[in-house]
Amino acid sequence: MPLVFAHDTLGQRMLFGTGLAAQNVAAEIERLGAKRVMTISSSSGSAALGDLPVALAWHDVVQHVPIETAKAARAAATDGGIDLMVSVGGGSTTGLAKAIALTTGIPIIAVPTTYSGSEATNVWGLTENARKSTRVDARVLPVTVVYDAALTLSLPVALSVASGLNGIAHCIDSLWAPRADPMNAALATEGIRALAGGLRLIHADAADVEGRERALYGAYLAAVAFASAGSGMHHKICHVLGGTYTLPHAETHATVLPYVTAFTVPFAPDAERRIAQAFDSPSALEGLNSLRFELGAPTALRDYGFAAADVAEAASLALPAIPASHPRPVSQADLERLLSAALDGVTPTSELFTTGGAV
Amino acid sequence: MPLVFAHDTLGQRMLFGTGLAAQNVAAEIERLGAKRVMTISSSSGSAALGDLPVALAWHDVVQHVPIETAKAARAAATDGGIDLMVSVGGGSTTGLAKAIALTTGIPIIAVPTTYSGSEATNVWGLTENARKSTRVDARVLPVTVVYDAALTLSLPVALSVASGLNGIAHCIDSLWAPRADPMNAALATEGIRALAGGLRLIHADAADVEGRERALYGAYLAAVAFASAGSGMHHKICHVLGGTYTLPHAETHATVLPYVTAFTVPFAPDAERRIAQAFDSPSALEGLNSLRFELGAPTALRDYGFAAADVAEAASLALPAIPASHPRPVSQADLERLLSAALDGVTPTSELFTTGGAV
Repeated sequence: MPLVFAHDTLGQRMLFGTGLAAQNVAAEIERLGAKRVMTISSSSGSAALGDLPVALAWHDVVQHVPIETAKAARAAATDGGIDLMVSVGGGSTTGLAKAIALTTGIPIIAVPTTYSGSEATNVWGLTENARKSTRVDARVLPVTVVYDAALTLSLPVALSVASGLNGIAHCIDSLWAPRADPMNAALATEGIRALAGGLRLIHADAADVEGRERALYGAYLAAVAFASAGSGMHHKICHVLGGTYTLPHAETHATVLPYVTAFTVPFAPDAERRIAQAFDSPSALEGLNSLRFELGAPTALRDYGFAAADVAEAASLALPAIPASHPRPVSQADLERLLSAALDGVTPTSELFTTGGAV
Repeated sequence: MPLVFAHDTLGQRMLFGTGLAAQNVAAEIERLGAKRVMTISSSSGSAALGDLPVALAWHDVVQHVPIETAKAARAAATDGGIDLMVSVGGGSTTGLAKAIALTTGIPIIAVPTTYSGSEATNVWGLTENARKSTRVDARVLPVTVVYDAALTLSLPVALSVASGLNGIAHCIDSLWAPRADPMNAALATEGIRALAGGLRLIHADAADVEGRERALYGAYLAAVAFASAGSGMHHKICHVLGGTYTLPHAETHATVLPYVTAFTVPFAPDAERRIAQAFDSPSALEGLNSLRFELGAPTALRDYGFAAADVAEAASLALPAIPASHPRPVSQADLERLLSAALDGVTPTSELFTTGGAV
């Protein structure tokens, strides 16, 4: 297959070290020569930063970044003569810092405390009149990300697992998404490996620092690969399930992923090999299924409110959104078969799709 | 093992496509809004660019970038009001463009025609009074790299193989070099895979475009990983062999690599697994040895002028340069054993190093 692609590698400095957030942030402030630092954190988050010289501490963080919050924070930053932001928190906190950077150009040091991955992308989002719009802008990419797994220790195991499986979905879907390319594939493969290993350790012991480190690192790679590759078949299906049937995000991803994988990998040998190797498993599907079983991941959409009566409609809503570049042609019947299997939690195998397929 | 590292991802756009160089360069010139373009190529290289509107075509390219050449080219660029450079060629051509960018800040689109990898790094080099100095500067990193495997078809098979194995050495050594980190490891693993597959195809058929594409892509990854990770044990040994005994570059790398690998992998299980998987082989060493055998790679330093009498001295010169962070402690006796084996082309196995080692 000819190798034709365009890939934008986003330039960013990453400092990784458990217990080192305060020290690494201080060193970066020094390196960047900042004089007036604004911290952004939802509550006590900035305590993780120790005794930073802070010109302005902003705590009004709201989910999905309402435009009113962004405007107030931008004004405060400008009025305060801020020359550097340090955000400490999850996606909403990083998102607010990005909204400020978008109009002011003030650089960001991001200190993530969840697996949202927003810190690794140039995607920003703002909510106005109850509608969220997202766009891409080079200015919003944090110049430095400081990862400190100690800040993720308070993430409950169940949430870590769900969020981590969502990260694995980002990685796997990026192997066949519209802008899939070998760079994204390499990072996604590494992301699967890191997340799988990390989640197993966290599942066994919530306080396992190595597990927390590996999961956090894997979530970063998942974000990089997914932001670059775009949404593939898996995310298009989950978007319909979340949007139209309001199924819960992480659980939906965790449930649907093995079916999309089972459907696709017979037609995507490179993805099959990469996923299998990342799981250290004989096959992609065995690796994914074993991990899900070990982690006690969700298995059936029925448990989250999806019903047999929804299958045909959901399939017809998802069908037009499936990227034309998907490695296996997708029909209404395929999607109905996939959603029916996911509804009941039938063991995900490629044979589920052989009767009507071309395998 | 705790995950502690700093990683700088260099932001760069990469366009990859065989036969697409002219089209991709033209699109980038448009995107960047450049008005006065300077091409830099040793001879007819810029013919690959088609009918570009060129304000200045520079052809005086000299190996190792003498300061006089750089000064003349800088003056020409400044006098000509140049706002974008397009370099077409190998490491010396890219190097001259970097020397101009260093003082003028003019951005570069690099179109590489060899596996030098210079286009993917922020390293520049200049030669003054017969001394080459190299440094790092963000300004010299090309903003865009345009890869077109058609431009590498004229690289002879033997040179492609030697240069490609040098790339594999960059990848493997970066797994245990001083700034080794999981990001570099992921890219290096992908680089080994791409280079190994590409070189096999090129070796079978010099005109194999897929082989050329994979090797070119692998050489890029090798450069990214190596520039980020720094020189490890392998490069320190080869540096002595090249510098003191003037052994030829690529052949030395190809010969020494399996011995450093054999010595190190028993103490570097992650590297062992990564290399083995990248070669689709049961073990790192089997994968590397098979590839070298298939490609008819050099096997013995004796064939290039190294002698038994040199072993002890070479070992003592290399020893102080071996990074303290190398996964296996290295002694004078280890290096003598390694160099003696490489001298005669003894089959590289880890058992070579077990008698004095701690395996």
